[in-house]
Amino acid sequence: MPEPDKKQQMTPEEAPEKGETNGRSDTLNGKTRDDFDLAAVYVSDAQYNRNIFFETTPEAIRLYLLYNHWVLHIVVYAVIVVDLALAIFEDPAVIPLPIWATTLIELVCLAAFVVRLVHYAKVISRERFWKDPKNICIICVILLSLTDIVIYGSLKATGYTAVRWSRVLRPLLLINITEGRQLRRAFRSIRNALPQILYVFLLFMFSLLMFSLMALKLFGKKGLTTTDGDAYFTSYLEIVFDLYVLVTTANSPDIIMPAYNSSVYFAVFFIIYVLINTYIFMSVFLAVVYNNYKKYLKEEVRQLVRANRHKMARAFGVLQEWKGGEGPVVTQASWNQLVRLVQPDISNAHRELLWSVSDNNNEGCIGKVAFVQLADLLNMTVIVVKSRPHPLQTSLPSLYLSSPSQLVCRMVRHRWFVYAFDFIILVNAVFIGLDEENPLIANAEWAFLALYFLEILLKLYTFEPKAFFSRHEFWNWFDTLIVVSALIATIINSVVKSSGGYTSRQILDIVFILRVLRLIRVVDSIQRFRAIINTLVRIGPTILTFGQLIVVVYYIFAMVGMELFKGKIRFFDAESTDPDREFCGNPLLKNSLFAKYNYCKNNFNDVVSSFILLLELTVVNQWHDILFKA
Amino acid sequence: MPEPDKKQQMTPEEAPEKGETNGRSDTLNGKTRDDFDLAAVYVSDAQYNRNIFFETTPEAIRLYLLYNHWVLHIVVYAVIVVDLALAIFEDPAVIPLPIWATTLIELVCLAAFVVRLVHYAKVISRERFWKDPKNICIICVILLSLTDIVIYGSLKATGYTAVRWSRVLRPLLLINITEGRQLRRAFRSIRNALPQILYVFLLFMFSLLMFSLMALKLFGKKGLTTTDGDAYFTSYLEIVFDLYVLVTTANSPDIIMPAYNSSVYFAVFFIIYVLINTYIFMSVFLAVVYNNYKKYLKEEVRQLVRANRHKMARAFGVLQEWKGGEGPVVTQASWNQLVRLVQPDISNAHRELLWSVSDNNNEGCIGKVAFVQLADLLNMTVIVVKSRPHPLQTSLPSLYLSSPSQLVCRMVRHRWFVYAFDFIILVNAVFIGLDEENPLIANAEWAFLALYFLEILLKLYTFEPKAFFSRHEFWNWFDTLIVVSALIATIINSVVKSSGGYTSRQILDIVFILRVLRLIRVVDSIQRFRAIINTLVRIGPTILTFGQLIVVVYYIFAMVGMELFKGKIRFFDAESTDPDREFCGNPLLKNSLFAKYNYCKNNFNDVVSSFILLLELTVVNQWHDILFKA
Repeated sequence: MPEPDKKQQMTPEEAPEKGETNGRSDTLNGKTRDDFDLAAVYVSDAQYNRNIFFETTPEAIRLYLLYNHWVLHIVVYAVIVVDLALAIFEDPAVIPLPIWATTLIELVCLAAFVVRLVHYAKVISRERFWKDPKNICIICVILLSLTDIVIYGSLKATGYTAVRWSRVLRPLLLINITEGRQLRRAFRSIRNALPQILYVFLLFMFSLLMFSLMALKLFGKKGLTTTDGDAYFTSYLEIVFDLYVLVTTANSPDIIMPAYNSSVYFAVFFIIYVLINTYIFMSVFLAVVYNNYKKYLKEEVRQLVRANRHKMARAFGVLQEWKGGEGPVVTQASWNQLVRLVQPDISNAHRELLWSVSDNNNEGCIGKVAFVQLADLLNMTVIVVKSRPHPLQTSLPSLYLSSPSQLVCRMVRHRWFVYAFDFIILVNAVFIGLDEENPLIANAEWAFLALYFLEILLKLYTFEPKAFFSRHEFWNWFDTLIVVSALIATIINSVVKSSGGYTSRQILDIVFILRVLRLIRVVDSIQRFRAIINTLVRIGPTILTFGQLIVVVYYIFAMVGMELFKGKIRFFDAESTDPDREFCGNPLLKNSLFAKYNYCKNNFNDVVSSFILLLELTVVNQWHDILFKA
Repeated sequence: MPEPDKKQQMTPEEAPEKGETNGRSDTLNGKTRDDFDLAAVYVSDAQYNRNIFFETTPEAIRLYLLYNHWVLHIVVYAVIVVDLALAIFEDPAVIPLPIWATTLIELVCLAAFVVRLVHYAKVISRERFWKDPKNICIICVILLSLTDIVIYGSLKATGYTAVRWSRVLRPLLLINITEGRQLRRAFRSIRNALPQILYVFLLFMFSLLMFSLMALKLFGKKGLTTTDGDAYFTSYLEIVFDLYVLVTTANSPDIIMPAYNSSVYFAVFFIIYVLINTYIFMSVFLAVVYNNYKKYLKEEVRQLVRANRHKMARAFGVLQEWKGGEGPVVTQASWNQLVRLVQPDISNAHRELLWSVSDNNNEGCIGKVAFVQLADLLNMTVIVVKSRPHPLQTSLPSLYLSSPSQLVCRMVRHRWFVYAFDFIILVNAVFIGLDEENPLIANAEWAFLALYFLEILLKLYTFEPKAFFSRHEFWNWFDTLIVVSALIATIINSVVKSSGGYTSRQILDIVFILRVLRLIRVVDSIQRFRAIINTLVRIGPTILTFGQLIVVVYYIFAMVGMELFKGKIRFFDAESTDPDREFCGNPLLKNSLFAKYNYCKNNFNDVVSSFILLLELTVVNQWHDILFKA
């Protein structure tokens, strides 16, 4: 992500070429360098949807440019990741580290946040700083974490047990930093949609309670039993829970069978229940969530567009000049200077293109309406297709242009070349499915690797390498990466094997995964599949934002779960002869389904286990069994 | 549904009042009665979205009017229902009937379809009749059914086993009759959306096969075992099946545990699998189905609107007259005659309203544009709110208008009256939850019933009864129905109890259900809940169309399943001492989970069991266990 404050990088050749001066105190059309800085900040804020009301003094602007430097963004993200990842090393730990080490790392992280916050406070006015709940929230989290560290440290030092409760607050930092804009927007849309969802949820709960009451009256006195011999549907709260689980379909059809075995008519009760609650209510839920989320997201985007237009209007206000009879305009010279400040790495051709789009009457200056589009224009990806000759053609023209060489190129460009390699991939898939300990199969692998490598070399021979590896050629990158890493891994594997006679399981697993991944290439040959994949890739960033959101929620639950349940369930290796293995080290689980199904590893003993457990709970099935282990 | 051919019902007072003549050979503005009949048929076809290209001879039109008579529609539906319901009485039967009886009923049904088809053939041209695949399909189904009956009958008579394979074809009749228009439209939309869905499905299958191959390579040689001690993930086809089941979440987390127990990293494999296949692919599926279905439904509706406009234009062509300088128009007299033919039960006031909407310049005649709207205008529901005085007010004015009586009315209209009864309902809910064998509770029930009855009486006293029970007052109908039936059921129950000292379980169950249903009334008091319920009621017809569609699909599967699996699994009562009870009467199921979980009643032994089983399979969970019973 190119950032606006790389003004030092501007090539000296570029500026004089346009007859412009380059220095802090110099002016262009009566505008100082500070004016251009201010306008550039407005434009890049609009470009990246930043919404910070910075002070407009030259000093604050320079600090603000520094604040938005991409290196600092990366540092902040790194600090957040390190802070959240501390859960891996803290008790209950996956990889235990001494308390002084984790505490030290946490203090460094907190210090980094303090520095970042102080920097932010210098950029915006004092009043705005204290009015913003995000800043207050960060300050509170930092203070609470420090308090917790002190309490925990002193309790541990004196030998008491202590709880690191402030770890739950860590994800709040991710949400409240300036970089968490997207995340906050998603949270806000969800929060705004909540009231509407609540009403459907209440109606659903009402329906659940009604059905439970009916089930109590219908089945409570019939003396039915489950397969385990327990009484069936006799307590109201148990019925509510069982029927709630039935909505998620997790205990179907077990919960239905006792009643169904007693009479066919009772099955009708459950069918109506499932139709109303699982199908109708869940569909209404989906519809309400979808519609409301869409509505509020539209509102958010509309506000964003309005704010961006406002920022661009301010930038225009800073740079405007008066031209006879045409009202305020921005000249091409000012515009060029501004664009070079905002995006220093932009090529001259690209900038000329943007100008000709803005000034389509070729008047040498643009009005407010055309100027306001600049941020959107800069956000557009312009793909420059240069038909450069192949480097071999320039260095060895006689060889490269000879007829055998040109025949190879024509062959590679032919569509039968693609078909041939699709066929090879399919044959490869069959070979992968066969037993790899057969020497023929093992050697065939080398042949396939050689073929794939040859394909890449041929393509590099035919197509211009820079175009082949340009940024938007996703599949070329993917192919090369997979084939080269498979080659390296296979070589390492055979070296290890031939030297020690011993095959490393990890390396072999990686080799297998790489082999199978190679097959994905077939997808690229089929137009429709490529369209679906491209759509998925395009919605990727949105999915990532939601991924962050889900990680935040999971993290909080994992922290709480770990403090509450750590060590309650232990996992024993298959070779273990410990008598506790039978019931996961918890006498409460003796003879339970949980222990019988070997679910012992589903526990809150460390952060990785917790995340996997929470994911399993999300996937829904058997969740009621898992839930009752504590 | 009022139908257009009730011309005999037109009241003789109405026609002379407008100075029009009423007889087949008479004319109005030069248009014969046949012209009006033809125009009326066009209008009512547009009104009910019928799309039949009937012959325009007076004879065919009269037959067509008869064909669309509502009594015949009901007869056709009844015949369809009887034909489909035969599955209940045919072997394998819920209620066995002798073969001659079911065969006779089926022959009557088939005869009815033949008559209906012959009638249809007389309405449209011969060429159109034989071009329409729907008619060909009905003829084929009838012929195949007759062949099957003959073969089955003769095989049974000679003592061979025989299969009633033509039962699978019965739902085709429901789809192909004229009345199945909505159903066909839904089917068509699904069929049109299929190609798009297919591509996503293929990509999903590709992903499934890739992951299975990876799983085979990763886990196949590790020697892992499941909790049952079986080999884990060693055969490719088994892996594909297991991973497919995992997409539906039915075997999570059991299928994950062996790998997870072996290494935490393998859990990552499953997490990626579930994220990609269960979440991303299933969401893409939903999105593709939603978008395509919407797109094709829109197209269908657009075609429908175009066809309707075309029909209305034809009706206009039949009735148009030339008026100086204004082009073709339809006069008010013709229009009135037409509307009375199309909808004989329309009130004069309603008709005048529709005319004033069409002829808003009050010119006494309307052009084509205004005329074309007629079908839509007739489809609009016009609620006539008449502030009629209460019947008691007219019969006993002195009593009804006295101050105590008016106080009662004001009280009932007060919102605290609603709150009071909401409170009573809540108290009632608590009482229902308590043990009903306590004499206090049992007597309280009488008190509640009396209170509810009093409420209805008070409301009838206050509000005009006809308005109270008007067609759109859903909740008043609901209340009265529930309270009156609860009263009747409770009285019957106590009579039975006091006479024989024995409580009939069925009656008691009905009483309980009615009691709980009463509580639903609370929903009506809360504005938001009412809005949700009203929305659900409004999309009811669409859901019903889909219900029919699902029943058609289930019926076909149930028929096939019954022929394939009938009698393979038997259900034994809990008291049965038959040794076969252990394994549902099928030695193959010895020690299987299926028998252990007591799933024996999930079988294809009769049509009711089959439907319940198919519903359970739709609800997804444990479906892999159920599936393998055969």
